[in-house]
Amino acid sequence: MRGLFIGRFQPLHNGHISIMKAALEEMDQLVVVIGSAETSFTEKDPFTAGERMEMVMAVSNERDWNDRIIPVPVRDLNRYSVWVDHVLSYVPKIDIIYSNNSLTRSLFMAKGMEVKGTPLIDRTDLSGVRIRERMISGEQWKMFVPASVVGLIEEMEGVSRLRSIFGKGDGT
Amino acid sequence: MRGLFIGRFQPLHNGHISIMKAALEEMDQLVVVIGSAETSFTEKDPFTAGERMEMVMAVSNERDWNDRIIPVPVRDLNRYSVWVDHVLSYVPKIDIIYSNNSLTRSLFMAKGMEVKGTPLIDRTDLSGVRIRERMISGEQWKMFVPASVVGLIEEMEGVSRLRSIFGKGDGT
Amino acid sequence: MRGLFIGRFQPLHNGHISIMKAALEEMDQLVVVIGSAETSFTEKDPFTAGERMEMVMAVSNERDWNDRIIPVPVRDLNRYSVWVDHVLSYVPKIDIIYSNNSLTRSLFMAKGMEVKGTPLIDRTDLSGVRIRERMISGEQWKMFVPASVVGLIEEMEGVSRLRSIFGKGDGT
Amino acid sequence: MRGLFIGRFQPLHNGHISIMKAALEEMDQLVVVIGSAETSFTEKDPFTAGERMEMVMAVSNERDWNDRIIPVPVRDLNRYSVWVDHVLSYVPKIDIIYSNNSLTRSLFMAKGMEVKGTPLIDRTDLSGVRIRERMISGEQWKMFVPASVVGLIEEMEGVSRLRSIFGKGDGT
Amino acid sequence: MRGLFIGRFQPLHNGHISIMKAALEEMDQLVVVIGSAETSFTEKDPFTAGERMEMVMAVSNERDWNDRIIPVPVRDLNRYSVWVDHVLSYVPKIDIIYSNNSLTRSLFMAKGMEVKGTPLIDRTDLSGVRIRERMISGEQWKMFVPASVVGLIEEMEGVSRLRSIFGKGDGT
Amino acid sequence: MRGLFIGRFQPLHNGHISIMKAALEEMDQLVVVIGSAETSFTEKDPFTAGERMEMVMAVSNERDWNDRIIPVPVRDLNRYSVWVDHVLSYVPKIDIIYSNNSLTRSLFMAKGMEVKGTPLIDRTDLSGVRIRERMISGEQWKMFVPASVVGLIEEMEGVSRLRSIFGKGDGT
Repeated sequence: MRGLFIGRFQPLHNGHISIMKAALEEMDQLVVVIGSAETSFTEKDPFTAGERMEMVMAVSNERDWNDRIIPVPVRDLNRYSVWVDHVLSYVPKIDIIYSNNSLTRSLFMAKGMEVKGTPLIDRTDLSGVRIRERMISGEQWKMFVPASVVGLIEEMEGVSRLRSIFGKGDGT
Repeated sequence: MRGLFIGRFQPLHNGHISIMKAALEEMDQLVVVIGSAETSFTEKDPFTAGERMEMVMAVSNERDWNDRIIPVPVRDLNRYSVWVDHVLSYVPKIDIIYSNNSLTRSLFMAKGMEVKGTPLIDRTDLSGVRIRERMISGEQWKMFVPASVVGLIEEMEGVSRLRSIFGKGDGT
Repeated sequence: MRGLFIGRFQPLHNGHISIMKAALEEMDQLVVVIGSAETSFTEKDPFTAGERMEMVMAVSNERDWNDRIIPVPVRDLNRYSVWVDHVLSYVPKIDIIYSNNSLTRSLFMAKGMEVKGTPLIDRTDLSGVRIRERMISGEQWKMFVPASVVGLIEEMEGVSRLRSIFGKGDGT
Repeated sequence: MRGLFIGRFQPLHNGHISIMKAALEEMDQLVVVIGSAETSFTEKDPFTAGERMEMVMAVSNERDWNDRIIPVPVRDLNRYSVWVDHVLSYVPKIDIIYSNNSLTRSLFMAKGMEVKGTPLIDRTDLSGVRIRERMISGEQWKMFVPASVVGLIEEMEGVSRLRSIFGKGDGT
Repeated sequence: MRGLFIGRFQPLHNGHISIMKAALEEMDQLVVVIGSAETSFTEKDPFTAGERMEMVMAVSNERDWNDRIIPVPVRDLNRYSVWVDHVLSYVPKIDIIYSNNSLTRSLFMAKGMEVKGTPLIDRTDLSGVRIRERMISGEQWKMFVPASVVGLIEEMEGVSRLRSIFGKGDGT
Repeated sequence: MRGLFIGRFQPLHNGHISIMKAALEEMDQLVVVIGSAETSFTEKDPFTAGERMEMVMAVSNERDWNDRIIPVPVRDLNRYSVWVDHVLSYVPKIDIIYSNNSLTRSLFMAKGMEVKGTPLIDRTDLSGVRIRERMISGEQWKMFVPASVVGLIEEMEGVSRLRSIFGKGDGT
């Protein structure tokens, strides 16, 4: 059986890991859709799809999930009426969607697909937006992100990138 | 003579009805452009163009305007410099535009078209955004919407859709 | 019951009339999708969506189908994997698709929708491409098109438009 | 040597002039990219690319920079990962980029291009957003904009356009 | 008075020069729209908009037209119903269009603009498509192109680029 | 070291296998870009990106390349001037491009990247277009495609899909 899990992974954090782990307990494989694939170098989406592919691959490697995690970058369409078929046209056949997002759940269920909830995560810290805020303000963030992903972010100089995006001062 | 009236109809409410009625007193037919046709399942635009077509058709039917109201869904271009010609390429020939929106008025007048104001409506309640807020918060909303449209919204489970969009909790 | 029929109507001809007529024998209403809505002033698609709306409306009027034919312009997406949902997001709810096009049939059937064939038409003459060729070369074409549509095409100076598109001589 | 300077010029103001002047002290020519070229008639971008071309041309004329300033309108792509090549595909070959924007600087430097800072400008008044606010509220704004551009804005009735955009009262 | 002339300039050749020259006899300035601005590295459109800007600038320089020729790259929209306003939104205000293309002529005239013909050019040789064919096959082509443009094409290694596009051998 | 190989895989055939095999002799991993990712259900591109993902995954599985082949669907932009950065934004960091296509080679080399040729393949039979022709005409095709991919195509009823696309008889 193959599951589907959709995220933006800006960056991939321990909350995502818990969801992947839980899904892989039930599924043979998990397709990990890297959403908003064409957005990058913005405050909300600093990393490119390719960099996020690397994050997913690093984690798969670390945890020996190489044959079981299938990352697929998918761009936004900003049209929810065709969004399910857009996603499905990009991925190998799947059996179940894992999501707690009420809109995602409704849209997939409306197409007759099976949807399952994901483990509840404490969003206080395990949230992309919080981790990016910590990166910008200089607070601790590395404990919320897998070690291999921390390494990648350092290699890409991700924190300084995020700060130059944040402070870009358009002023127009 | 044929008039043009542009709205988003999220949902169609009694304010729209007053405008249509006033325009039909002067015109043989009224083209009703259903704007932002490709946006749906968002907080601001929960209903699809097709669902909004059904709302307009239900009202036309109810009021015996079938031969006189011509609904046409038109997507946004987000480019005002070509917007008038975009709209005009989608609709049968028209003589007059009905609008109180100052930008719409200027853009159509700049093309040499005749523009007329619409009856003033009390926006406290007769506004899409207020009606959607009422739907979300559980306040009364049905008195602001024609009965046939209330019926359609119930059939589509529109209120629960709007709530699952509102509470989607992206948290990323 | 409501049917769906998709065409480009460049221009609307007697073949389309036969199909509409046959469908209306079985259905209460027929949604007539005016495809490639954003293409016009080309050799293959000389008329705008709005002009084609007028053609459908003229025919509905002539034949007393005003309450039963619902024209809806829909632009091309050029992405068949999401095309069915694209079309469905634009139209009021439908029960059956009328089409002889093998790809249209497969795509809608793959979504679990009921698809019916349309009456066979002699394509030698009742084909948009043939009628446009006749317009360009100066051959007879009016016998293949409803009288009201002939009138509209004359009003729009459609034949001379088609010729100026055809002979545009880019030469670059 | 040819420099590159990117702005939105909504409207062109004395801050832009200082930057152009400083760059022309070092460069033979300066390519002036008119960004967000396809956006107009919005609160943030009231003027069309063509109108902004006229502003740049008026200033070039006034200051005898006709052979040295090369205005080029370039639309937004909203994809920073390909943005540098997008801009470069639109302009004649350049040697140096002038920018204080930290994101622009990083993106061009990542492509191995030379980037220089521009003179610091007092953003309290010399900022497009502040000038547009002054136009809307009826405060003084003409002292911040070159005389020839003031003339153009008056000819286009720019202030009243901006106000009709601002007060458009969508209310949906 | 300001004229408008639209071309693709793949490459700029002596036929374009004749048209510019004739227009400049009647006009103070000529806006030269570089069409299909976003297409490049194809057989029909080998050069980028920026490279074609350079061709126009080189010719202006050579002929002392610097203050009178205003090149503006404009991308295709592939929607003729909004095309005139698209072009007009990109350029400074113009008085007259110069064109022999029957479609361009009709579209601008339909907007109430004045359109003038251009000098007839012998298309046997003075045509972009013929010059590109000569480049590919190794025939003489330099006599049909201004010397300064020949120089630019050599600098860009334009002929070998065109051949690698032509022979790309996709074979899929 | 990581290589990059770009194909459309309509369908994946033995020619692709030879290239992957050769590249994997030199590289640790090979990123396999599934091009034209958003095109499907056309004569030239019958299979969706997701179906082509399955083909690549089936082959990786069969040949024990699971940790070494990284398939990534990437849509067309139809803008060669930004195409390299578009592709690179989608994939994990790569060291070398494998391609015999002269345009691809030039574009990547112009960005300073290393490009290597791929083994020469007899295009008489090992070509997507030839295999699709054979599928349509009923000739033998299975000997040119890996067994696991034949199995997938049969499961998807790919041949009958291709025929219904081919014979769609638009006739408009």
